[in-house]
Amino acid sequence: MALLVQKYGGTSVGSSERIKNVAKRIARTRAEGHDVVVVVSAMSGETNRLVALAHEIQEFPDPREMDVVLATGEQVTIGLLAMALQDIGVPAKSYTGWQVLVQTDNAHTKARIEYIDDSKMRADLAQGKVVIVAGFQGVDAEGNITTLGRGGSDTSAVALAAALKADECQIYTDVDGVYTTDPRVVPEARRMHTVSFEEMLELASLGSKVLQIRSVEFAGKYQVRLRVLSSLAEGGEGTLITYEEDPNMEQAIVSGIAFDRNQARINVRGVPDKPGIAYQILGAVSAANIEVDMIIQNAGEEGTTDFSFTVSRGDYRHTLELLKAVEDSIGAAGIDGDDTVCKVSIVGIGMRSHSDVAATMFRTLAEENINIQLISTSEIKVSVLIDEKYLELATRVLHKAFGLDRQ
Amino acid sequence: MALLVQKYGGTSVGSSERIKNVAKRIARTRAEGHDVVVVVSAMSGETNRLVALAHEIQEFPDPREMDVVLATGEQVTIGLLAMALQDIGVPAKSYTGWQVLVQTDNAHTKARIEYIDDSKMRADLAQGKVVIVAGFQGVDAEGNITTLGRGGSDTSAVALAAALKADECQIYTDVDGVYTTDPRVVPEARRMHTVSFEEMLELASLGSKVLQIRSVEFAGKYQVRLRVLSSLAEGGEGTLITYEEDPNMEQAIVSGIAFDRNQARINVRGVPDKPGIAYQILGAVSAANIEVDMIIQNAGEEGTTDFSFTVSRGDYRHTLELLKAVEDSIGAAGIDGDDTVCKVSIVGIGMRSHSDVAATMFRTLAEENINIQLISTSEIKVSVLIDEKYLELATRVLHKAFGLDRQ
Repeated sequence: MALLVQKYGGTSVGSSERIKNVAKRIARTRAEGHDVVVVVSAMSGETNRLVALAHEIQEFPDPREMDVVLATGEQVTIGLLAMALQDIGVPAKSYTGWQVLVQTDNAHTKARIEYIDDSKMRADLAQGKVVIVAGFQGVDAEGNITTLGRGGSDTSAVALAAALKADECQIYTDVDGVYTTDPRVVPEARRMHTVSFEEMLELASLGSKVLQIRSVEFAGKYQVRLRVLSSLAEGGEGTLITYEEDPNMEQAIVSGIAFDRNQARINVRGVPDKPGIAYQILGAVSAANIEVDMIIQNAGEEGTTDFSFTVSRGDYRHTLELLKAVEDSIGAAGIDGDDTVCKVSIVGIGMRSHSDVAATMFRTLAEENINIQLISTSEIKVSVLIDEKYLELATRVLHKAFGLDRQ
Repeated sequence: MALLVQKYGGTSVGSSERIKNVAKRIARTRAEGHDVVVVVSAMSGETNRLVALAHEIQEFPDPREMDVVLATGEQVTIGLLAMALQDIGVPAKSYTGWQVLVQTDNAHTKARIEYIDDSKMRADLAQGKVVIVAGFQGVDAEGNITTLGRGGSDTSAVALAAALKADECQIYTDVDGVYTTDPRVVPEARRMHTVSFEEMLELASLGSKVLQIRSVEFAGKYQVRLRVLSSLAEGGEGTLITYEEDPNMEQAIVSGIAFDRNQARINVRGVPDKPGIAYQILGAVSAANIEVDMIIQNAGEEGTTDFSFTVSRGDYRHTLELLKAVEDSIGAAGIDGDDTVCKVSIVGIGMRSHSDVAATMFRTLAEENINIQLISTSEIKVSVLIDEKYLELATRVLHKAFGLDRQ
């Protein structure tokens, strides 16, 4: 008998029929003899509906009140799922974040979990109940409702698993695990049985939508055994995130390929090549709360330099406007950009001991005449910015070049 | 400067536009120098949507979980209204029932308020903030979310006004006050400037939808100055509920006429006329949680009696089936009924000192050939059950007969 935390996302609980299916799945897990704590998201579409409503009222909704409104989405789901379980004879009890208590800091709309009280959950489990907790939400020390930001339900599940010292945290989603790349782009993509924590962290940050990055970080911090599974298919083992490298297993050099269409490139041309120029340019951008991803600086002509970076597409226009406003003061010869670019990344623990991985990547892309615009690397990943139209082609040829299509 | 509690119902906050209008109204009240605590309902349609969702999951939804789901409706409104106020420069802060704390008993879906903590509200008011409280909801001693039942937001408002010792509790609704009868039926109906607490109590229980009866009871218990106003029209004074009879004012004999279409009549014919027969018949009905309204028992032929009573139309079929099942054991000659009946009532404090009011009512109806099926009376009201097709006619002629069309 194990203690399992199961998390079901918005699609999995998107209708009353689907909520009933989730209830049946939980009932089966319980019939196998396990204790179950369930974390749920808002029904799919609900959070967007609430956000839209708030924006009809206020252009920049007050964060405290935004959290009051948003937290209702998960609250509806916990009540409905508890009803669905009781309807098939499984005792169940729902808890909002403040009822559990999931205590967070007071950073509304992006709060961080500080403390979880496991006493009520333990008491219910001891009575044979399934405990259902609203994901994504908590309460600060003053009793204000907080939310953890988009994808925060994954983080709630991992944090609850850590607090309860659960045997496994199972993230049920609409895919049946973590793949070598997106199967919609590369049909030969394979599900990984295991993926290392560090690889998962890179994949999450590089645009793989399977797990929210903060939940992976949280799992790493508390060494939570984390598994991604399908809520639609039956009986799959999904993908397990591991923390220890198995010395007996030959490690694949590259484990997965991630891509991210949400990229736009900004070029600041012909700025004087002097100390502090990067700060002058990026300071204005970060002051507007715009996140910069890849950055490159190249020597230009006659003591000038060309400076390029990427932002998400939603920030593209705003960033261009910001820089046009300071174009003269930074002495730039021109500012332009391109929002039809994308980022393709290879990720693998094995890169640490193989120096030729980046070279293989660049050669493979060159053979297809795909021009690399920017490069960024870490110990276990290489990312390149390319024209968006080559996204599928690049992903396919890299998937093959690193042998990911072979079991 | 006064402390006002203002309550806005579901129609008044039914869209983002309407929420903005409510915010403007509150801002004006505040600009006049008043402190304002606002109580809001769920946006119109929202509670019905949530109830339907719950019924898709479970035929008889678990009451605790039903409250978890239902309480979200008001929670959305408080957040949105706080945003709308802040957007026009009025500092505002929202509270759910558990945040305030509105403590209730644990009778889920029909909880009663036991205690209200006014400390947070007082602190916010002292800081010049508008306080917005979710109506209809509270929390029990164990931290479970509770709701007060349909129309419970009126009760929340009155209870908050009592706890805060507010100068007035203003119920904003889609009518501009309490009328002598429904103006849609009798165009000559007049708004009352004042109505006595006891009359309001009878009107509420007899089918007038303006105020929820529990809120009127609550107002009476704590002598809360209660006023019904229109949230759509500007500047009206509405109707004030009074607790003291003004000896200088000539009291109208009849103040208002209420009607209720939600009536069905059940007849149990030819039962033995012996002690305990009423209990035998009604015991079975009340055991099924069906509420009986009017009751009459008439001597029939040869030591038998005919027994009639009314239930709400939703309970009509069920009640008939229940009694058919015990028809033999109670020795009835026959069981039938009619669900095309309605109840028309006249209400007035003045009846206490005028013995001819009932006679005037019966004569007026007789002159129109309207047959009276059942009669029930109290100190300040007379109700008759008649064929539904005469509802408008009866209301009109009674309105005229008692001079309600004259100022």
